[in-house]
Amino acid sequence: MCPKSTSPCGGGTVETVTAVREAEPADDALVGQLLHDFNTEFGDPAPEPLWLARRARELIQGGETVVLVVGRPPAGLALLRFRPALWSPGTECYLAELYVRPSLRGQGLGEALLQAAVATARHRGADYIDLGTAETDTAARGLYEKLGFRNRENRDDGPIMYVYEKDL
Amino acid sequence: MCPKSTSPCGGGTVETVTAVREAEPADDALVGQLLHDFNTEFGDPAPEPLWLARRARELIQGGETVVLVVGRPPAGLALLRFRPALWSPGTECYLAELYVRPSLRGQGLGEALLQAAVATARHRGADYIDLGTAETDTAARGLYEKLGFRNRENRDDGPIMYVYEKDL
Repeated sequence: MCPKSTSPCGGGTVETVTAVREAEPADDALVGQLLHDFNTEFGDPAPEPLWLARRARELIQGGETVVLVVGRPPAGLALLRFRPALWSPGTECYLAELYVRPSLRGQGLGEALLQAAVATARHRGADYIDLGTAETDTAARGLYEKLGFRNRENRDDGPIMYVYEKDL
Repeated sequence: MCPKSTSPCGGGTVETVTAVREAEPADDALVGQLLHDFNTEFGDPAPEPLWLARRARELIQGGETVVLVVGRPPAGLALLRFRPALWSPGTECYLAELYVRPSLRGQGLGEALLQAAVATARHRGADYIDLGTAETDTAARGLYEKLGFRNRENRDDGPIMYVYEKDL
């Protein structure tokens, strides 16, 4: 079987497109481009790709951010933020961004990124991960729910949890 | 006028109950108790007050957490987490906890804490603040909306934003 591969099955070693890894400095330009394209696609203002590339590298070097990429060159990314938890001695993880290029969706890249994000969070001592998403992002919501994320408090029929935000 | 004061108006200096300040080490025991009582009230598991007091102090000393308290001794708190933003050179603020003792609600303490939280966030260079809350927390939601927080993406009639979470 050769699931979720963009390369034909057959002889030789084929790197499946779903291989997820931590972004290296050589990936930075494309990480910046992906972040820029992400916000542009959703109608949000975005700094220039080069600025975002530098900012993401700064955050990674700060030690509390991990950027995971899928594909070589990167065609999607997950950006995770960590901090010490309040309610436990562990850390908590915020999945700040999850993006796959539109032309490559439906091939499992988002799921591979999300699975890797959860594994990375566990590996870094997190006992909790959360994220915010819009009600209209049904594909993303389906993926989150498939991997056990819930948007209801405490129990499956608990109240829905909202993000409230404010620009300062 | 003597708004929102628990003391009668009149001569002398009256400290209104809505005076908000950063928690000092001397407040730690009550901060831990408030955090414990917060989660207990909402049916969430909570570590012991003393453990929470120590943890909150550790986070404050780490430099990326601020605890604001209202009242002397503290009768309510706001706990803010900061980190460098991805999309701007500034910081972003997460209002992790906002709590007022049940017997003291309806007197403006929550609003005073929220206003102080927003001011503190701005003072620390944040250009964005967010929080998560449940659909059933109508009093809290009304307060957030009164102070300009929105749970819709980009515009007032945009899609609702959900928190998704997962224990690891």
